[in-house]
Amino acid sequence: MGGPAPLQISVGAATAGVTLVGVGPGDPELLTVAALRAIRAAAVVAYPVAQSGGDGMAAAIAAPWLLAEQRRLPLLFPMVAEAPPRIAAWHAAADALAVEVAAGLPVVLLCEGDVSLFASSSYVLLALRQRHPHCPLRLVAGVPAVCAAAATASAGGIPWPLALQSEGLLIRPTPETAGELEHLLDQAAATATNVALLKLGQRWPWVRSLLDRRGLLEGALLAQRVGWPDQLLAPASAVPSGERAYFSLLLIRQGWPAVLP
Amino acid sequence: MGGPAPLQISVGAATAGVTLVGVGPGDPELLTVAALRAIRAAAVVAYPVAQSGGDGMAAAIAAPWLLAEQRRLPLLFPMVAEAPPRIAAWHAAADALAVEVAAGLPVVLLCEGDVSLFASSSYVLLALRQRHPHCPLRLVAGVPAVCAAAATASAGGIPWPLALQSEGLLIRPTPETAGELEHLLDQAAATATNVALLKLGQRWPWVRSLLDRRGLLEGALLAQRVGWPDQLLAPASAVPSGERAYFSLLLIRQGWPAVLP
Repeated sequence: MGGPAPLQISVGAATAGVTLVGVGPGDPELLTVAALRAIRAAAVVAYPVAQSGGDGMAAAIAAPWLLAEQRRLPLLFPMVAEAPPRIAAWHAAADALAVEVAAGLPVVLLCEGDVSLFASSSYVLLALRQRHPHCPLRLVAGVPAVCAAAATASAGGIPWPLALQSEGLLIRPTPETAGELEHLLDQAAATATNVALLKLGQRWPWVRSLLDRRGLLEGALLAQRVGWPDQLLAPASAVPSGERAYFSLLLIRQGWPAVLP
Repeated sequence: MGGPAPLQISVGAATAGVTLVGVGPGDPELLTVAALRAIRAAAVVAYPVAQSGGDGMAAAIAAPWLLAEQRRLPLLFPMVAEAPPRIAAWHAAADALAVEVAAGLPVVLLCEGDVSLFASSSYVLLALRQRHPHCPLRLVAGVPAVCAAAATASAGGIPWPLALQSEGLLIRPTPETAGELEHLLDQAAATATNVALLKLGQRWPWVRSLLDRRGLLEGALLAQRVGWPDQLLAPASAVPSGERAYFSLLLIRQGWPAVLP
């Protein structure tokens, strides 16, 4: 018997230049065919790291698809608030990629999630355009964490359509203050907008109280490390107060459309 | 020489139940590995059609990955404003899928873009939970059109990060009136939120005038049929007034963060 034959995906000739590749939020199965082809055709695999010698999340996600003979190029993006070291890091990353391209090597830069949504690759893109305007560039879109969280929740018995009909979906970092979040939720409710709050992290205790007060805790979904072996997806009401992981996110729906099955 | 060996992806044993599969916005290369595995393991491939005998966009996107021996199951979702025929269609789709599952067949339902974002699959999911609560369900997240549009624009020389740092991204249908859009853009500007307006279609003439009046035309990006052979991506200023395709979208950025490369 044996079921259907394995899929065979051809890998084309490598093209010179940098390909920014979204690898999705955690599960290596969420890489696209375009991402796989770009990665397999690359001689150099670059990826962001937060500290020298550290592992990168994007590289960890793509790990099952990488080849031993591909050269690794970790790019240091320090997680600091000050602007100068971040700007210097973006410039250094662009220059390092341009050096490989000038040597004739096809390069990929792996990016967690999608390449255009809160992505280090967006800064590298801007720096490359500025400093190396003739460097050939491609981008491969990826699955955003918010989409993976909604799909995983729905599969797990908590149906979570991100947006239906005339609703909106707002994706943004968690506000810094309760006042800001109150205002944001008022606006969202008035415009039938569902909200995805990223980087919940240490803000969870006061966010939880606020949602509780507004009667939104039961319908909200907390997602953390979606697609990783230690993922957490739960109704926000089931997640106790306390600090959460930096890459946790919250989905908030304050209403439903009138027409539903 | 011959370059790297082709990638071989194994197809696991089919599992009973329905898998809702996001196939991305147009390019068959944007299907994920998880999507390919689910599709190849299916005996029945269901997909939405707007009229009986019509072709479905999701089926067209997945076409290169489908096998001749897989049974096609078009599901009719009429594009009408009235609620009763739409509700009846969601119920009928859920029932048709449940029949296949009851017969022991693994089924996929293909969905354009992501499965949770303005997707027919969200209604089928809700109808299945309601009418066939024991039907096993999986979801495979997909690449949203907005992400593919941004990546394609950036690769084409119009760098379009959807969101950076503390910015927000609001994805929603185009408002019905100029007054609503004015209000939306005021709110978005005040909260550093970039806006993706879907289903631009026949609203383009008055939306264009409004953006022009606000000085936003040059920085806005119009995208249509992203990933299809006839895709259009252009600065909104380059797209003349007149009706656009139903599935056209507009990306609007009213400012930039202070810290950039």
